[in-house]
Amino acid sequence: MSSPQASRATPAPDPATGGKVREWFASVRSRSRRLAAPLSAEDAQLQSMPDASPAKWHLAHTTWFFARFVLDDADAIPDGWDVLFNSYYVGAGDRHPRARRGVLSRPTLAEVLAWREDIDARVLRMLDAACVDQARLETLVLGVHHEQQHQELLLTDIKHALWCNPLAPAYRHDLPRAEPVVSAVDAGPAWLACDEAIVEIGAPRWPDAGADFAYDNETPRHRALLAAHAIARRPVDNAAYAAFVADGGYRSPTLWLSDGWDLVQREGWQRPLYWHEDGEREFTLAGWQPRDPRAPVCHLSHYEADAFARWAGARLPTEIEWEAAAASCTLDGNFADDEAPLHPHAARTASHDGAPQGMFGDTWEWTSSAYGAYPGFRPLAGTLGEYNGKFMSGQLVLRGGSCATPRGHVRASYRNFFPPHARWQFSGLRLAKDFD
Amino acid sequence: MSSPQASRATPAPDPATGGKVREWFASVRSRSRRLAAPLSAEDAQLQSMPDASPAKWHLAHTTWFFARFVLDDADAIPDGWDVLFNSYYVGAGDRHPRARRGVLSRPTLAEVLAWREDIDARVLRMLDAACVDQARLETLVLGVHHEQQHQELLLTDIKHALWCNPLAPAYRHDLPRAEPVVSAVDAGPAWLACDEAIVEIGAPRWPDAGADFAYDNETPRHRALLAAHAIARRPVDNAAYAAFVADGGYRSPTLWLSDGWDLVQREGWQRPLYWHEDGEREFTLAGWQPRDPRAPVCHLSHYEADAFARWAGARLPTEIEWEAAAASCTLDGNFADDEAPLHPHAARTASHDGAPQGMFGDTWEWTSSAYGAYPGFRPLAGTLGEYNGKFMSGQLVLRGGSCATPRGHVRASYRNFFPPHARWQFSGLRLAKDFD
Amino acid sequence: MSSPQASRATPAPDPATGGKVREWFASVRSRSRRLAAPLSAEDAQLQSMPDASPAKWHLAHTTWFFARFVLDDADAIPDGWDVLFNSYYVGAGDRHPRARRGVLSRPTLAEVLAWREDIDARVLRMLDAACVDQARLETLVLGVHHEQQHQELLLTDIKHALWCNPLAPAYRHDLPRAEPVVSAVDAGPAWLACDEAIVEIGAPRWPDAGADFAYDNETPRHRALLAAHAIARRPVDNAAYAAFVADGGYRSPTLWLSDGWDLVQREGWQRPLYWHEDGEREFTLAGWQPRDPRAPVCHLSHYEADAFARWAGARLPTEIEWEAAAASCTLDGNFADDEAPLHPHAARTASHDGAPQGMFGDTWEWTSSAYGAYPGFRPLAGTLGEYNGKFMSGQLVLRGGSCATPRGHVRASYRNFFPPHARWQFSGLRLAKDFD
Amino acid sequence: MSSPQASRATPAPDPATGGKVREWFASVRSRSRRLAAPLSAEDAQLQSMPDASPAKWHLAHTTWFFARFVLDDADAIPDGWDVLFNSYYVGAGDRHPRARRGVLSRPTLAEVLAWREDIDARVLRMLDAACVDQARLETLVLGVHHEQQHQELLLTDIKHALWCNPLAPAYRHDLPRAEPVVSAVDAGPAWLACDEAIVEIGAPRWPDAGADFAYDNETPRHRALLAAHAIARRPVDNAAYAAFVADGGYRSPTLWLSDGWDLVQREGWQRPLYWHEDGEREFTLAGWQPRDPRAPVCHLSHYEADAFARWAGARLPTEIEWEAAAASCTLDGNFADDEAPLHPHAARTASHDGAPQGMFGDTWEWTSSAYGAYPGFRPLAGTLGEYNGKFMSGQLVLRGGSCATPRGHVRASYRNFFPPHARWQFSGLRLAKDFD
Repeated sequence: MSSPQASRATPAPDPATGGKVREWFASVRSRSRRLAAPLSAEDAQLQSMPDASPAKWHLAHTTWFFARFVLDDADAIPDGWDVLFNSYYVGAGDRHPRARRGVLSRPTLAEVLAWREDIDARVLRMLDAACVDQARLETLVLGVHHEQQHQELLLTDIKHALWCNPLAPAYRHDLPRAEPVVSAVDAGPAWLACDEAIVEIGAPRWPDAGADFAYDNETPRHRALLAAHAIARRPVDNAAYAAFVADGGYRSPTLWLSDGWDLVQREGWQRPLYWHEDGEREFTLAGWQPRDPRAPVCHLSHYEADAFARWAGARLPTEIEWEAAAASCTLDGNFADDEAPLHPHAARTASHDGAPQGMFGDTWEWTSSAYGAYPGFRPLAGTLGEYNGKFMSGQLVLRGGSCATPRGHVRASYRNFFPPHARWQFSGLRLAKDFD
Repeated sequence: MSSPQASRATPAPDPATGGKVREWFASVRSRSRRLAAPLSAEDAQLQSMPDASPAKWHLAHTTWFFARFVLDDADAIPDGWDVLFNSYYVGAGDRHPRARRGVLSRPTLAEVLAWREDIDARVLRMLDAACVDQARLETLVLGVHHEQQHQELLLTDIKHALWCNPLAPAYRHDLPRAEPVVSAVDAGPAWLACDEAIVEIGAPRWPDAGADFAYDNETPRHRALLAAHAIARRPVDNAAYAAFVADGGYRSPTLWLSDGWDLVQREGWQRPLYWHEDGEREFTLAGWQPRDPRAPVCHLSHYEADAFARWAGARLPTEIEWEAAAASCTLDGNFADDEAPLHPHAARTASHDGAPQGMFGDTWEWTSSAYGAYPGFRPLAGTLGEYNGKFMSGQLVLRGGSCATPRGHVRASYRNFFPPHARWQFSGLRLAKDFD
Repeated sequence: MSSPQASRATPAPDPATGGKVREWFASVRSRSRRLAAPLSAEDAQLQSMPDASPAKWHLAHTTWFFARFVLDDADAIPDGWDVLFNSYYVGAGDRHPRARRGVLSRPTLAEVLAWREDIDARVLRMLDAACVDQARLETLVLGVHHEQQHQELLLTDIKHALWCNPLAPAYRHDLPRAEPVVSAVDAGPAWLACDEAIVEIGAPRWPDAGADFAYDNETPRHRALLAAHAIARRPVDNAAYAAFVADGGYRSPTLWLSDGWDLVQREGWQRPLYWHEDGEREFTLAGWQPRDPRAPVCHLSHYEADAFARWAGARLPTEIEWEAAAASCTLDGNFADDEAPLHPHAARTASHDGAPQGMFGDTWEWTSSAYGAYPGFRPLAGTLGEYNGKFMSGQLVLRGGSCATPRGHVRASYRNFFPPHARWQFSGLRLAKDFD
Repeated sequence: MSSPQASRATPAPDPATGGKVREWFASVRSRSRRLAAPLSAEDAQLQSMPDASPAKWHLAHTTWFFARFVLDDADAIPDGWDVLFNSYYVGAGDRHPRARRGVLSRPTLAEVLAWREDIDARVLRMLDAACVDQARLETLVLGVHHEQQHQELLLTDIKHALWCNPLAPAYRHDLPRAEPVVSAVDAGPAWLACDEAIVEIGAPRWPDAGADFAYDNETPRHRALLAAHAIARRPVDNAAYAAFVADGGYRSPTLWLSDGWDLVQREGWQRPLYWHEDGEREFTLAGWQPRDPRAPVCHLSHYEADAFARWAGARLPTEIEWEAAAASCTLDGNFADDEAPLHPHAARTASHDGAPQGMFGDTWEWTSSAYGAYPGFRPLAGTLGEYNGKFMSGQLVLRGGSCATPRGHVRASYRNFFPPHARWQFSGLRLAKDFD
C-alpha cells in the first residue's frame, strides 16, 4: 500500500508552536504585498470577468479573514467593509455581489494596504500575548493557507485582466524566462503501469492530534481500490497539443463531451485560452512570448483536456490514480516564489528512474474525478464549514499545483477544483489509460 | 462479495434467439402506441421546455432509430424526416434544434403512426428472413431498450406539458389510484449497516458472449471498495419532506450546495415541482390529487435531495452503496405497465426480513455519484458510441427506476443520469450515512 | 387642403343600423373559420416565437372579446378560459403568458370552434332582441374590426410557423398564383412632388355623431404642416432590393441605424426574412415559390427599409406625407379575400394619371414616424382604453394594409405599428425625399 | 411666429475668429481636468454599467477626437490607443467593446492626462500657425462642444459608479449645497396656454454662413404647426412625485406604457433611481443628502415621467411645444460651472411675469417626441456624419440641459436623446395638456 502523504516539503507549522506560526504568518502576508507591488492602483482594481477578482479585493479579503475569524476587536473592520470583503460565507452576513467587485474604487489600494499593516500588527500582538487559545491559532493557520490560495488567484486573475487589454501589458517585465531547453535524452518509459491495488489516499483530519495541515476536503485518509491502469510519465506538452489543433481537434464533435462541444461552438474556441492566433506566441505574465513546444500545455478547460485525451486514444486519470502516482515523487517543481518565472517550463533534466515527472508545479492537472466528498468527510464546524463542502457540485478535481502556486502550499492529497469550462488557471493534463 | 447483478426479472431476450426478439419488439412497439392513445394530436405536439420533447417526436424518433440503424432500405425514411428525428447523433448528420421540436406540425401524428406501422412491418419482415446478421440483431435489441427509455420520457414530458396548462388536464382519468394505505406495523430497522467490503458492481460488457443486455455505461463489471456505512431501509416519504419544507428548508442557505442555493433564489423554489401551494395536493398524470404522506417524495432536483439529506443529518448514498444494497432485492416494484397507477405509492405490506424496501420502481433515487466512466469503460463502436459516453459531464446518477419506467427495463446495475437541477422526472431519494 | 379621409371603400356599418351589423358580424366571424379551415389541429397550435400566436388562440381570443366585452352572461366563458384568452387587458384580470400560448393543447381546436358557434349564436340572439343598447353595439363593432386584425395575424403567424419547419409545408396549395406580368409601359413619373401645405389627417373621433369607425389612435382628425417633399409613385420592388443586397447593403455599417446594425450583426441577417439563400425563391403561404422581381419587396424590418432608403439616396416618408399622398387614391388593391393570392404581386396595369400606385394592399409600408399620440388624442374609456395607447413606445407606424389584410379593413388614416426589428408581417416600403 | 432661437447666452465662438476659438478651446479642455481632479486613478477607471464610461475614458476619448479628426500628425496617437478610444465611429476603424471600457488599466490616468497636455499643445500650435483651414477649425469647434457633452457624462457616470459602492462615497464633499429655500409667494399661473400657431423651431445649418453653432440634428430651422395646448409653468417637483409614489403609482399598471410596466415589474422599481428607501434622502454628487421637496424631481426614466403625467391627468409636452415655450426664456439657470452645486434646486425667487420657469438647467425634461430627423435633415459629411443621425431609433428627446450641463453648452433648439429606460441622467419633466 502506497503512502503519497509521506513525501512533503516545507510543511506548514504546527500551530502548537507559536514561534514558527508567527514567522510563517509574517512571511506569507509579506509575500502578498510583494505580489501586488508591480501593480498600479488601477491594475489592482481590474475585474475582467465574474469568476476573477481584483488584486485589491484579494488583498482585502484575505485580511478580512483574519479580522473576522481570528481577531476579536470590534473595531478591526472599518464601517461597511465587512460586506465588501466577505466572499461567500453566508454565515458571516451580507455580501457585495461577486461580479461587481471591480466597481469599488473605495477603499483605495492605499487604504487596503494600510489596513493590512494594521491587522498584521494586531495579529502579531495577539500571538505575542501569552494567552492565545488553540482554536484561534488553528483558524490563523487556515487563514494563512487561505491567503496562499488567493496569491495564486491574484496572479491568474491579473493575467486574464491584462490579456483583456488590447495593449497586452505585462505584469512584470523582469520575470526570469522559462527558456526552451534541450535536455539530455530521457531514457525513461512513456507510461507507468500499475496493477490493481488498495491504496490509501487523502489526509488525516486536521487539526486532530498528530495531523499535519490539510483542508477538510482532503480528509479523512481512507482506503481506495485502484484498478489496473497506466499513467503517463510526463504531462502533455505544447507540441502534442498543437498537433491536436492541427489535426482539426476543435472541429471534430465526436472527440468532445456533449457539453464541451456546445461550448466550443458557442464560444468559437479554436485553441487554448492564451495562444496567439499567429501560432507562435502565447500570453504570459511577461506579455506575449514565444511558445515553447516542450513545455507543458496549459490554460485548458476540462473539456479540452478530455477531448485531447480521446484524440490521443487515452483518458484523463482519476484523482486516485494521480495521488497514487504522486506518492513516489518528491514534492518539488516549478512553483511560485520570488525568483520564479510564473510560467510552465520544459523539464530541465533527464530522469532515468522511471518515476513520474512534473507531478508538482508547472500546471494543475485535470483529472476525470468530479469534486465530491470522501467517505467519512465532515466539513469544519461553524461558518468555516462553508470553506469547501458547499462547492461539491459541478466541478472537477485538479492536482499538483502550478507555476503560480506558492511553494510549500500543495501536497499529494491537495484537491483543487474548478468547473469544466474554466481555463484561466494554469491547467493542463497528463494522460492515463486502461490496460489492454 | 455481493453480486447485485444476480437478481433480475424479465430479462431482455437473447438476440441469438430470433423468435423471442420478434415477440418482444412487437410488444414494446405496441405499448408505445398504447401510451400515446390518450393523447390528441394537439397533446402529442406539446413541448413545454427544451429538455422535454413532444410525444409525437418520441414516437417518431424511436422509429427513426430502427429505420436508420437497423433497416437498410434507402426509402425507409421519408424525405426530410432524417433531420427532424435525429436526436443527438452527430455521426448521423444534421439535426433539427432540440428546443424547437414543438414547432413541427408536419408530419402529423397520423403520419407518424402510419410510419411506425410501415417500419414495424419492415423490421418484422427482416426478422422473418433467414439471413439477419448478428450485428443487426444486436442493434435492434438496443433499439427496443432505447424505445423503453422514451416511453418513460413520453410520460414525464406530457406530465410537465399538461401541468403548464392552467386548466391542469389529466393524461388519463381512468388510472388506478395509488390509494393511501395503512400497512401493518413494519418491525424492520430504519438503517441497514454495511462493513467495509470489496463488491462487484456493473455489468459484463454486452454483447460479449454470455452477457445479458446492459448499456455500455454499466460496463465492465468490476470490483469496487465499499467504505463502512449505513443506508436507509426505505425511501424518504412526503411527510418527511413536508417537515423539511415546514422547517424552513428552502430558506436556509447553509443546507444547500452553493449552486443549489443560487438556483433556489433565482427560481423562487419553495417546494417540490408538482406540489400545490395549498399544501394538500400534487399534480399527477391523473390531474390534481391529494398527496399521500406515506408515499415516496418525488420530482426533486438533486439539490433538493441533497439539502434534505443534510437537514436530516445524513447524506445521499453513492451509486456503489446503492447497487450493493440492491443486490439482495427482488427486481420488483411499482413500475409502468398497462395497469399501473403511474404514480409512486406507499408500500403496501410490512416487511420483517431487514432487506431494503422500494429500491426498484416508484421513484428514481438520486445518488451522490457524478455520472462518469467505470474503470475500463469503452463506448459502443461507431455512431452508437454517442449513446451514453458523451454525456459524462455535469450529471448525477439516479438508480432503481420509477413508476413511469417500463416493467423489465431496469436492473441493479442500471445508471440513469440527469443534471442536478432537473426535477421533472420521478426523482426522489434514500438516505445514507457514515458510521459514527 | 387635402382630405384623404374622403376616399374609402366598404365602410364599416353604422352601428345605429342593427341589420347591417348583424350581417357584417356573421360574415367576418365566418371568414375566420374559413381561414382556419386548411389547418389541422396541430397546425392551429403552433407558436413559433413569442410575438406570434397559434391560430387556435386567435380564434379563441377574438371570441373571448365578444364574450367578455359584449355579452353579459356569466356563463359565456368556460371555467379557466378567461385567463387563457385575455391578451393584454390588465383591467380584465390575469393572463396566461404570451410566449406560452403554444403550450396549450386544451381546449382543443374542436372545442374552440364549438365555443365560437355558441358565442356567435348568443350575439346574434342579442342583436335580434329589441333592447340592445348603443354602447354594446359599439363594442361589438370594435370587436369585429379587432377580429379582422387577428385574421391578418393568423396568416402571418402561420406563415412563420410553417417556415420554421424544415419541410416547408404550404398553408394552401390551391392559392391563385400572383403571376409575374409584363404590363404595358407606364409613362408616369417616378416621383410625386408636394409643396409645403397644411393638410388634415387622421379621423374624427368614433363613435361621435357622424363619425365612421376608426380606432382611437387615428383620432382626432387634425391639421398638420407638410414640408415640401417628393414621394415615390410606386413601392420598392424585389429587383431594386436585390440590387441593394448585391451591392453589399448588409455588410455596410454606415447605411444602417446603430440599433439596426447591431441587430444585423447579432442575427446574421443577409436578406429579407423569407428569401431563399438560392437567390431565386421566397417562402409564401403556398410554400417556396419563384420570386417576382417586379413585385413589391416585403418581410423587411424597419431597419432594413431605412438602410435601403439611405442606400438609394432617399428616406422613408413620414406618416403625414403618406396619408396626404393616399388622399387621392381609391381604396383598392391586393387585399385578402376568399380569392386572393395572399402574396404581393406586381401592378397589372399601367397608369398614366400620375397618382401614386399601390398605396393600399400588397404590403404595409414602413414610415419614419414613431407611433405616438395625435394632438388631442384620448384613449377609449374603460378597459378598452388599453387597446392602442399603451403601446405608444418604441414602435413605428406602417400604412396601407397588405395582401393579408381583410378587404375593407383599412383606410387612409389607418395606423398599424410594429417594433423596428419586426419582419414577419408583409412589410415593405416606398421612398420619399426632401426637395433639393 | 415665435423665434426661440433668438434668446441665447454665451454663444460658441465664430470659427472664423481664430483668437476666440483658441481661448475657448483651452478653457473647456482645462475644465475637464478640473472635473477629474477630485477623482483618484481608481475612481477614474470605474465603469458601473455598459451605458456609462470611466472618467479616464472620457478624458481620453475627447482627446482622441482632436487627435484623430483635427490634427494631422501620424504620431499624435500612441500605438494601440486608436482602438481603445474610438467610441462608435465605424468609419474610423475598429473599436474596443463599449461594455469593456472599465477593464483597461493601461494607459494609466497619468498617461492619459499627459496625452491631453501633448494634444492640447499640438492643437494650440496649429491654431497659432497662419495656415489653419476653415474645415479643420470647424471640426475643432465641434470637438469642443463634444467635449462639453462628455463633461456632463463624466459627472453622471461617476455618480452612478459611486452609488454602486455600498460605502456611497461622495464625488466632492465641498460642493455648495442647493439649500431648501422658501421663496416669496409666486403669483403666476400654473399653466401657460398657447393657441394653434405656426412656429419656427430648430437651428440654421451650421457651418453655413451666418449660422451659430448647432448640431446637425437641430437643423434645419423649419416651420412647424403647433396645436392648441397648455404647458406647465414649472417642472414637477419632488413633493408632487412623492405623492405619485405614495398613491401606488408604481403598482398601477394602467398608468404605464406597456413596455414601461414590463420594466417596472422586471426591475422591481419602486421610486426614482437615487431616492433612498428611507423616504428622506437621495444620492447626490455630495453623497446621501436630504431630499428637498420643492426641487425638481430627477433621475426618472421616460416611462416614469410618462406614468406620472398620466396619473396627474396630463401628458408630456412635444419637443415643438417645449421649444416654443422656451423662446421667451432667458438662457439661464442652474448649470454646471466651477461654483455649481451639481444638483437641482428649488427656484430661489418668485416670478410674476407669467413666463415659464426652470426651462434651462436643473434637469433635462423628457418630451413625448421620438428622436428623429427634422424635415430636410442632412448629417454632417464624412465620418462625423455618424455623430447624431444613426441614433435616430428608439430614443426620446430631452430638452433644456441640467445641473450637470456646462454653462453655455445648450440652447433652445438643443436636442438631447436617451432610450426610454435610461434614468442615470439628471432627467425630470414638465407637464402639458390639450385644451379642453
